[in-house]
Parts: sequence; C-alpha cells; structure tokens
Amino acid sequence: MEQLTHFDEKGNAIMVDIGHKEQTKRIAVATGKIKMNQAAFDAVTQGTSKKGDVLGVARIAGIMGAKQTSNLIPLCHPLQTEKIQIEFSLLEQTRSIQACCTVQVTGKTGVEMEALCGVNLALLTIYDMCKALDKSMEMYDISLKEKQGGKSGTYQRGNESC
Amino acid sequence: MEQLTHFDEKGNAIMVDIGHKEQTKRIAVATGKIKMNQAAFDAVTQGTSKKGDVLGVARIAGIMGAKQTSNLIPLCHPLQTEKIQIEFSLLEQTRSIQACCTVQVTGKTGVEMEALCGVNLALLTIYDMCKALDKSMEMYDISLKEKQGGKSGTYQRGNESC
Amino acid sequence: MEQLTHFDEKGNAIMVDIGHKEQTKRIAVATGKIKMNQAAFDAVTQGTSKKGDVLGVARIAGIMGAKQTSNLIPLCHPLQTEKIQIEFSLLEQTRSIQACCTVQVTGKTGVEMEALCGVNLALLTIYDMCKALDKSMEMYDISLKEKQGGKSGTYQRGNESC
Amino acid sequence: MEQLTHFDEKGNAIMVDIGHKEQTKRIAVATGKIKMNQAAFDAVTQGTSKKGDVLGVARIAGIMGAKQTSNLIPLCHPLQTEKIQIEFSLLEQTRSIQACCTVQVTGKTGVEMEALCGVNLALLTIYDMCKALDKSMEMYDISLKEKQGGKSGTYQRGNESC
Amino acid sequence: MEQLTHFDEKGNAIMVDIGHKEQTKRIAVATGKIKMNQAAFDAVTQGTSKKGDVLGVARIAGIMGAKQTSNLIPLCHPLQTEKIQIEFSLLEQTRSIQACCTVQVTGKTGVEMEALCGVNLALLTIYDMCKALDKSMEMYDISLKEKQGGKSGTYQRGNESC
Amino acid sequence: MEQLTHFDEKGNAIMVDIGHKEQTKRIAVATGKIKMNQAAFDAVTQGTSKKGDVLGVARIAGIMGAKQTSNLIPLCHPLQTEKIQIEFSLLEQTRSIQACCTVQVTGKTGVEMEALCGVNLALLTIYDMCKALDKSMEMYDISLKEKQGGKSGTYQRGNESC
Repeated sequence: MEQLTHFDEKGNAIMVDIGHKEQTKRIAVATGKIKMNQAAFDAVTQGTSKKGDVLGVARIAGIMGAKQTSNLIPLCHPLQTEKIQIEFSLLEQTRSIQACCTVQVTGKTGVEMEALCGVNLALLTIYDMCKALDKSMEMYDISLKEKQGGKSGTYQRGNESC
Repeated sequence: MEQLTHFDEKGNAIMVDIGHKEQTKRIAVATGKIKMNQAAFDAVTQGTSKKGDVLGVARIAGIMGAKQTSNLIPLCHPLQTEKIQIEFSLLEQTRSIQACCTVQVTGKTGVEMEALCGVNLALLTIYDMCKALDKSMEMYDISLKEKQGGKSGTYQRGNESC
Repeated sequence: MEQLTHFDEKGNAIMVDIGHKEQTKRIAVATGKIKMNQAAFDAVTQGTSKKGDVLGVARIAGIMGAKQTSNLIPLCHPLQTEKIQIEFSLLEQTRSIQACCTVQVTGKTGVEMEALCGVNLALLTIYDMCKALDKSMEMYDISLKEKQGGKSGTYQRGNESC
Repeated sequence: MEQLTHFDEKGNAIMVDIGHKEQTKRIAVATGKIKMNQAAFDAVTQGTSKKGDVLGVARIAGIMGAKQTSNLIPLCHPLQTEKIQIEFSLLEQTRSIQACCTVQVTGKTGVEMEALCGVNLALLTIYDMCKALDKSMEMYDISLKEKQGGKSGTYQRGNESC
Repeated sequence: MEQLTHFDEKGNAIMVDIGHKEQTKRIAVATGKIKMNQAAFDAVTQGTSKKGDVLGVARIAGIMGAKQTSNLIPLCHPLQTEKIQIEFSLLEQTRSIQACCTVQVTGKTGVEMEALCGVNLALLTIYDMCKALDKSMEMYDISLKEKQGGKSGTYQRGNESC
Repeated sequence: MEQLTHFDEKGNAIMVDIGHKEQTKRIAVATGKIKMNQAAFDAVTQGTSKKGDVLGVARIAGIMGAKQTSNLIPLCHPLQTEKIQIEFSLLEQTRSIQACCTVQVTGKTGVEMEALCGVNLALLTIYDMCKALDKSMEMYDISLKEKQGGKSGTYQRGNESC
C-alpha cells in the first residue's frame, strides 16, 4: 500500500515523520449535519435562548473534542491548535442542524482531523441531548470543506457556504 | 424545554439522575458509512491483509473511542462497558466502508452514545488514513440501528442488516 | 500518621481498600465562590442570556471535571456517578458568583471529591472567561456543604443555603 | 458581551485566535490556601517526613493537573509548558497550608490557567488526604499572584510573598 | 487463532463479552525490577527521606497509571478498582529497585493488567527521575506474581516473595 | 540529592525548567522483550496475517501510549512528537517478541520517556492479548537503546541491533 502514508514500507502503521516539514499557518474547515424529527428540531431551536441551550453544550463538546484529536485518532500528531470555532446553522427545510468547525494552527501538519473531530463531537452531543425525543436521528454530509496552508496548498470542496 | 431530559427545570444542563433506575443488561448497535474514491477504496480493500491494515487500526480506534464516551460527551454517565465489537463491510457499489459498533453493559442507562462514538471514531480514523488519496471523503448514514434493554424496551431502525 | 487513611502502616500513599464496604446511595454537595470587579460581574450577569453565556460554559466544565476526579486526585477511587448538577447564584453585594455542585452515586465510597472538583473547575472556567476584564479575581469559601450516605452518615456544614 | 474575549461577535463561545501573537517567554504564579483543624494540620506537618507525605502527593497532583489544563478548561489553548513548580508554606497561626504554583512557557498565550489549575489540584488533593480528620476544611484566597511576558506585560497582585 | 480470546471468529480484535460472568472479588499482584548504577541507586536510597523522594513520586505514578489501564490497553474493560497499593524493595546486591503492585476489584474480570500497568509506570517514573545519573538502566523480571478470584481460581508464579 | 535533576534545592519534585534550552531535533530508540510459552508464541506468529493480529493491535497501543507520556510520567514535559514508529522482531529461540520504538521531536528536551512508554505499552498489550494462553509471560531487557540530539549528544547502548 505504498500510497497510504500511514504505513511504512513493511505495511506497518506508523506516525509519519513530519520533522522536515515547514512550520506554517494551516487552517481546516469541516462540516456535517444531523437530521431529526420536528419535536427535536423545535426543542433545539427554542433552546438557543437562556434555557435548554443544546447548541451551547454541543459547541463546547466540539471544541474540547477537537483538542482531543491526537488522543483519539491513533496516528495523528499532537498539535498546539491556535483557534477553534464551531458554528451551527438551522436548516428548517430538512429539520437538520449543520455544524461547521474551523481550526487553525502554526505547525508542520494540517488540522483536518481536528476540524472533523470537532464536527463529529458536536453532532454526537446534539444526538445525546435530543435522543429522548427522537432515537432515529441521522448524521450525514460530514466532510472536509476547506484546507489552507502546507505544501499541498488550498483545497475547497463544493461551493456551498459552510 | 421540558421534553429535553438533559436540562433541569430552570433550563440548565444537567447529568440526569439515574440512581433509581434498574441495573439491567443493555445493548446498542450503531452504524455509519464513509464514501471514498476508487484509489482509496482499493487501498483499504487490499489492506485488510497483512499489510496496510486500515480497518484493523480503525477498529482499535473505535473500541478505544467508545470507552472514552463519558469523557467526550458532556452529559453522559460513566459506565463499565462489558463488550465492544466493531465490524466493517465493504460496499463496492458505492465505494463505501460501513462500520457497525455493538456495545453491551449491565447498567442503569443505555449505551447508544458509546456505540455511536465507536462508529464515529472508526470512520474518522479511516478518513485520517486515506486522506492522502482522497480529501473529499464523506461520512454519512450514521445512526442508532438497534437498542435493547431498559424501560423503553427494544428499538429497531430500518430493516437493513448492519 | 496512623490517622491519615491514605497511607499504609509504613507511611506510604495507598488507594485504600473499599472492597468490604457496602454499596449504598451517597450524595455530596460542595460549594465555592469567585469574587470579581464590576465589569466582569456585569459581563457574567448579562451573559446568562443567549449570548456570552459564561455560566453555561462553566457548568459544562464543572460537570466534565467532576467526571475526571479519579484521574486528577491521585488516591481517589473510580466511581460511576449517577447524577451531577451545578447551580450558580449571583451574589450582587460581593460581586461574587457562587457555584454549588451536587453529585450522587450508588457506590462503596463517597463523592465529596467529585463535588469539590466540579466546583473548582466551574470557578476556574469563570476565571478563564473573565480574566480579560479582571485579573485579580479571587476564589474562596470552597468547601463541602453536605454529605449523605455511607457509614459516617449525614454531614452538614453551616446552615447557609447553597 | 463584546468585552469577553472568549465569545465571538454572535456571543458564541470560541477558542480565540492566537495565531498572530508573538511566541515569548511567559510566567505565571498562582496561590491559594486551605484551612483545617489542628488534627489535620498536625498530620500534614509531621507527614512532610519519610512517612505520610501529604504534601509530596499533593505536589505531584498539582504538577500533573497543571499539565491537564487545556483538557479541563474548555477554551484554553494547549501549550508546551517548560517548567512547573509547586511550593507549600505551613501557616501555623491560621492552621492553613498555602500552595504556590509557578508555570513557565515559551508560547503565544499566558499560563495563568495552568498555574491556577496547579494550585487548585494541589489543594484538592490535600483535602482528599485529610478529609478523614476534618470534613470542614475550606479553600480560600486562590488567585493569580503574578504574570510576566506577553503584550500586557507584568502584573503583580498584592505584595505578600508567595 | 481460536485460542486468543481477544479476537472474534473472523480474527478481528474485540473487547470480549464479560456480561455473563459473575461479579466476584478479584486480586492481582504484579512485580518488576529496574537495575541501575551505584550513583543512581544511592540517590534513590537516600532519597526515601524528606528530600528527593523518587519512590514517593513513582508510587503515585504507578497508582494513577493503574487507574488508566482501560484507556491504555486497547481491549481492556473499564473497572472500578477498589484498592491499589505499590511497594518498593531495595535490592542492594543487584542495585535494583523492585516494584510490587496489588490491585483489587469486585468485578466481572480480573485486574492483572491494572497491576502490571501499575508496575510498569512506577518503574518508568524511576527511570525518568534517575536518567540524568544513568541512561543505561534496565527494566526486567516484570510479570504477574499472583491472581485470585474468578473462574480460573488462584494462580501463583514462583515462590519468591514480592 | 543535588544530582537528581527532578528535585529543587529543597528536595521537592519539580518539572525542571527547559525554557533556556535549544529547540533541536532529538531522536530516541527504546527496546524491550516479552517471553512466552510455545502456544502463545505460535498464536502471535501466525496472527501477523489477516486474522488475530496481536502485533498490529500492540503497535497501535504503543504509538498511542507514547503520545500519553507527559500525562503518565509526572515530571515529563509535554512535547509535539513528530514521528513514532514501533517494530517487532520474533525471537524464536527464546520464544520472545522484541519491541523497538523510535520517537522523534524538534524540541527542547529529549524523547527517551516517550520511546520507553511506547515499548512498555506495546509489550503490555501483547501480554493482555496472550494471557489466556500463558499467564507466566515475562517482560525484560527494557532499556534505552539510542539517543541523538541535545546537549549531551549521541548515546548508544550495546551494539545489538534493535
């Protein structure tokens, strides 16, 4: 599997050497959605006020989860993230919540996994808090939206706004 | 938001009291998929051998991630999980990998979140290991498949096999 | 130091044997305060709305911190906490925020340390979020307020409401 | 709450961007006290010998706790601390133990929270180890004592020695 | 590999089902040694006093490490350990320190791994603290010494005292 | 104990100041072995194929364990490791598995402890997975093999290949 960078020449998993790479500013944006029934969607929507703030809790879970990335993803490098931001959009037509996580670092490798972990943990927390109202919620459309910095340059997926 | 169990009567987030609940055997099964391009799919498929075992690494990440659930999801209760199993299916037509995580406990609350965390971290690890071949991978169809035990009884979502 | 239970007869630190103790319902309530200048106090007070919810973030930090107790306090036993609740009171006269953390378990040992960790981490998070407005904040009056269950029975400190 | 730096313009919690800040040497010193009855105070005092070394255990807990800061305080940045030191003073008149934690880093943000976490976890560990002798111990006077480095320069609180 | 219990029938790693097993009292004792040069051995020996207490720090690291077992060993079950004790012996003839870790639980599976983790982390901490005096230290003779409880009954390795 | 660098002049444990040290490339290689009976050795040997891959799981545990070093060893500095690699050799004559862990960093202090943690956790995981076949396994010959970079320069232990 010579194309897979996380294995050495013998096919063994490895945390790849990034020692020689340049320390540059890198940004990654990931996004994902969770679809729910009307009761759950209403509860989340109304809750973005003083009380029952589902998205406030999910935001903290996402930020803290992004910081745990290198402890959770076996071959990820530990990094000193310099910014983590999570934003939610309410998509009424599909009764979905969209999470968007932006992570920034000055480092030798990118923060795609941090941004994706942030999204996943925010969505999982929404699931946890709403599961009494809807067990059949579904997470979908989780992907890297954008990536800047590093040797491979800028990557943009689709042209939908985050 | 009186319907949301994770908030008290004032609307503040709370880890709800499960002290009075019965300690029973509870099982949860969650599932999810990641779609990728042909190069990444081939690499994963061929790698389920001695070398470059993407799914072997992702399975360990999923099992260890499921054990971290109560540290990651703010209002989850710590639990002594008694079994965690993660299985992968290769869906050639859609070039997707499906992860299926089964968690079992004898406890006072269910293990849905543990099963979902297991799925999410397995999929995220696949993403991490294949991202050099395909940055545009997408995670989707992540949901609770089945739940047994506890007061609310058995729940089954859809009739697709896991 | 024969009176200190966390040391063996040779004076070495030990996680004491609780194997023979009864598994009973135990509750602990801890409390503590943080005093700040008017600008910080106003920011916290106004923030308990939709925006800038300092106390919402601090509450999550306290709940998650209480769950980390046995990883933070060297000789604490791991426990399956069944309820964690954190409430804040705004004490205008002293420009203080009071945190009150209630933890409950069915177990062989008490949850005083969990309640105290919850209080401390909630207060520290308030400090973190307000330190741009006031570096001189002070945490004080941190103590166990109440304890129920276990061989030593009920303990109550003072008669101030939490 | 435009003055609170941990929220974005919409009032959502955020790990603020420090990417543009300079990497400089930064030091923070925090302090705090725990007051106890004579039996507990004597036990701690005599224990700073070969046996029953309460303060030795508390020191390790404080150092390890300071290293956990960014995992415990939701919006804290991960940092590579370069020095952590915890010192205790025995204050006989008030039967208090004072903890003083110094943390140093070469980084883009300060280490106030690390120093405060170190103090809090050291004090909590003293509480844990002495609670069999005195349940009514109280933690107080916990604050940032000193801060050097960074754009805001040197800060000194009071003139009491640490 | 049908004999290896940590794999399912397809050869995939699994956290095995212990749900049907009985909750009984289980004890495990593990042991291990670290050999060093005279300078390091002297430093450790003299240090078991008020100052430079290498073994005091190593004991705490071992106890805390034993509590981390299920987070470190991928297929280990989380357990509520009820007692952890670490004792050191100074073996002058071989200039070795022997660590002995006893762990006890009332649970559905044994605590061999907890005891071994306790030993390993205690020895690693001794290594860390003495490495300025001797880089060539060697850890050896690390094994399970004794195991009680559970279906397989009592196991005793060798007849050397721990 | 003026020679032990992890204590201050009063003999108290300290995370030593590395602020003034140069940020250079540093490499450490550690090694260790585990001896087992024929049944366990056969199971491991045959398992390095598609099924029952003991060493694949142990490798991941070792890599993830190396990343946890500063959380496990009380006085270790947090570091941003840039490469972690674990290799196993099958030593048929002694029915032993040898683990070899290489860690690299650009930092102010070395990564000996990271490499040793990687080895220890890999060996412990092998123990865990084989203990149903052999409870009497023994870990031995665990030591630092090589160290490059930093003020003290290159260190090499023995001339056996890793």
